[in-house]
Amino acid sequence: MAKYQRLMDEIQQQIEAGIWLPGTRLPSLRQQVAQQGVSLMTVLHAYELLESQGWIVSRPQSGYYVAPRALAPAPLSVAISEQVDINDFVFDVLQATRDPAIVPFGSAFPDPALFPQRQLMRSLANVSHHLTPTDALHNLPPGNATLRQLLAQRYARQGITLSPDEIVITSGALEALNLSLQSLTEPGDYVVIEQPSFYGALQAIERLKLKALAIPVDARNGIDLVQLEEALQRWPVKACWLMTTLQNPLSVTLTPERKQQLVALLARYQVPMIEDDVYAELWAGDAPPLPAKAWDRQGNVLHCGSFSKSLVAGFRVGWVAAGQHAQRIQRLQLMSTLSTSAPMQLALADFLATRRYDTHLKRLRQILAKRQQMVRQALMKVLPPQATVSEARGGYFLWVTLPESINTTRLYQRALAQGISIAPGQLFSAGEQFRHCFRLNTAWPWDSRAEAAIVKLGQLMAEGQAD
Amino acid sequence: MAKYQRLMDEIQQQIEAGIWLPGTRLPSLRQQVAQQGVSLMTVLHAYELLESQGWIVSRPQSGYYVAPRALAPAPLSVAISEQVDINDFVFDVLQATRDPAIVPFGSAFPDPALFPQRQLMRSLANVSHHLTPTDALHNLPPGNATLRQLLAQRYARQGITLSPDEIVITSGALEALNLSLQSLTEPGDYVVIEQPSFYGALQAIERLKLKALAIPVDARNGIDLVQLEEALQRWPVKACWLMTTLQNPLSVTLTPERKQQLVALLARYQVPMIEDDVYAELWAGDAPPLPAKAWDRQGNVLHCGSFSKSLVAGFRVGWVAAGQHAQRIQRLQLMSTLSTSAPMQLALADFLATRRYDTHLKRLRQILAKRQQMVRQALMKVLPPQATVSEARGGYFLWVTLPESINTTRLYQRALAQGISIAPGQLFSAGEQFRHCFRLNTAWPWDSRAEAAIVKLGQLMAEGQAD
Repeated sequence: MAKYQRLMDEIQQQIEAGIWLPGTRLPSLRQQVAQQGVSLMTVLHAYELLESQGWIVSRPQSGYYVAPRALAPAPLSVAISEQVDINDFVFDVLQATRDPAIVPFGSAFPDPALFPQRQLMRSLANVSHHLTPTDALHNLPPGNATLRQLLAQRYARQGITLSPDEIVITSGALEALNLSLQSLTEPGDYVVIEQPSFYGALQAIERLKLKALAIPVDARNGIDLVQLEEALQRWPVKACWLMTTLQNPLSVTLTPERKQQLVALLARYQVPMIEDDVYAELWAGDAPPLPAKAWDRQGNVLHCGSFSKSLVAGFRVGWVAAGQHAQRIQRLQLMSTLSTSAPMQLALADFLATRRYDTHLKRLRQILAKRQQMVRQALMKVLPPQATVSEARGGYFLWVTLPESINTTRLYQRALAQGISIAPGQLFSAGEQFRHCFRLNTAWPWDSRAEAAIVKLGQLMAEGQAD
Repeated sequence: MAKYQRLMDEIQQQIEAGIWLPGTRLPSLRQQVAQQGVSLMTVLHAYELLESQGWIVSRPQSGYYVAPRALAPAPLSVAISEQVDINDFVFDVLQATRDPAIVPFGSAFPDPALFPQRQLMRSLANVSHHLTPTDALHNLPPGNATLRQLLAQRYARQGITLSPDEIVITSGALEALNLSLQSLTEPGDYVVIEQPSFYGALQAIERLKLKALAIPVDARNGIDLVQLEEALQRWPVKACWLMTTLQNPLSVTLTPERKQQLVALLARYQVPMIEDDVYAELWAGDAPPLPAKAWDRQGNVLHCGSFSKSLVAGFRVGWVAAGQHAQRIQRLQLMSTLSTSAPMQLALADFLATRRYDTHLKRLRQILAKRQQMVRQALMKVLPPQATVSEARGGYFLWVTLPESINTTRLYQRALAQGISIAPGQLFSAGEQFRHCFRLNTAWPWDSRAEAAIVKLGQLMAEGQAD
């Protein structure tokens, strides 16, 4: 028997004996060389054969891990992307929404005219009168102490107790999400995302050279917890990036029970969760639902929030309540952007110190709900038969599912030629599953231009069906 | 003859015949399998042996490249770090300088009291009165058009013609540098840095999993161009991160001739250069020297600047004039922090629209030169024999080289216990070469506390020698 076969047999027996449990890391190639007194080539050969036979899984720059024993080959509908490929298309779509001549149904941003412009300017003017030379130092990561305190108070009012020291102020939620992901992973690691998901998650995974495990999200119930658990059993997952409230693009919200189950499940597998929670404040009721973070007892949920969707777009201030991961994130920030702008942090601390934010939110939620309703009604009249529209409970997105015969990437191009943008399904997944879906932004004024655009979209959809 | 030996011979002959020139990429493992009809193991074996014999070089996730033929083994004094290890120490040192009770000789920042506080506040107040809801959209990457125009005008006044479209506004120079590096490299790539270098470069290389080729920098002449060329011949270098004016920490400036040679050399090897130029505006004369960018004809120098050292610390606004790389950097920014804060960009555009910046710079340069002279004089009196101090032509750093018997990491700890921070040599290199050096910040007020601190440092150095 060749040396590599002996080694293979030995490892198989050890796995069957439970010496190496599913998910645990096997000795490294070099450790095996030292232990077994064989060559590197022999060990590599044995490991590669074991992998090809499904006994073990390799993770670049990390090592070899035991695969789950009992799993039949590929029972999952989980989509695994070795490399997520987000091409120029995302940027083209974003670029199109920046032209004021284009009806911004494809935009990711809310109408900034809904924000309390005058009050924010007053806060900024206040800051401009009281800025001191040393403010730059005091606002270095983790960020302005007063602002972190005020955020901790907002959590406390939801019944979530966390220390201001767990909060890191960032340049918008996007930096918070990216730093969180970076702090938890190495290139080649597996990360769970949603399907469909926010394209920023797909881009981050591409940029950081991670592997995406995309778990289906149901428009009614949210992420599939059974498939999530199967993925956790099967792969050495290093982090999850999930939206539990008003998920983008589906707008679905997990029930409190399911959020609790999700946190418990991830705690069981010791997998940290990055919770992207930038739309919760736009919930169409009085009190937004609790985030999954509310059930986190281990400091293993990194809750990312922002003011960009609910208060002011251009300040670029967000945060992450990062639990035990706060220090690592702070340091990554010090290395990558140094800190969030001091006057912007101070202006927000000034604004939040009164109850103006809550007064504003109440009004904002009402307007957004009203606009969403108007767009929805107009849309229902022009949709082809069999099309469905998501039941959003807030936010400013509708997710439209058309008959499969209609390709929304083509619809996007045709609509754009008519001065209308939409966000085609292709943006939200590395796969092909959503090529008959699109996301529609309902935050902008409902006027005759928007009304005409919906009618036009209806015509284009009807034409698309005949393709 | 074994199959792998045949393949080895063949490749060696091809290299000797000039079919594969030094620096070119060999066929991938899989291509060889297909071409030669041998197994992957055979090809891998042949390549690994060729590598161990110095014929070829492997680059993770990229492939195998031909090594320069004629080079004797390791003739370089270049330090190659497979993984740069910047530990908690950098953060400890930074943290210490944030305590106002500590004399900030170790600080990286200038005294913010030197900045035109009142005028900046006026610009910020102006912005707060004219901010419009759509400003957030108009300030997305590449950034505010007026600000980019004003920057292009400043370049033009130096005789450097570049389009505002080549400029990307970033969250400080640190984001500009990091995005530039990221846009040019993949994990595992070789990058040239300086030795000693700004620790931010070391941290970026660690974070992005790159390999550092550290080229010695001479305190009088700057980077060693001969060793740089040897490194370019020998390794598949993907980018250089260099400071050509008032290099941190040595404060050395390349002559115009050497800058031109540097740009020509890198152009010959088609290697882009990230030029970190954040101290040039603090040149101790009237007109700062031209950056290397001035000789760039191919758009292959990414010139990174900032207002943080010369105008305002906390706004976090910098830029990169990125030539042909501008679009890729913009997109990376859209994915990682989305954009620089809109009010901060607008406030700087407001400030720069007048000539106030140049008036301020003139005054700032005078004060900094004066303070540097004072610290230098005091220092010379207390230094041990054989110690040397850099001849800085501006900026606010002095580089002190002590007798090798004095360990500056220990000196740092002892000084800190006495309420004085310094930046020990250990921060500026992955190696051990600078353990008897330290950097001293001279930007802060020269008062009795600072004077006493220099005397105290002198005592500690004398004690350190007796260790």
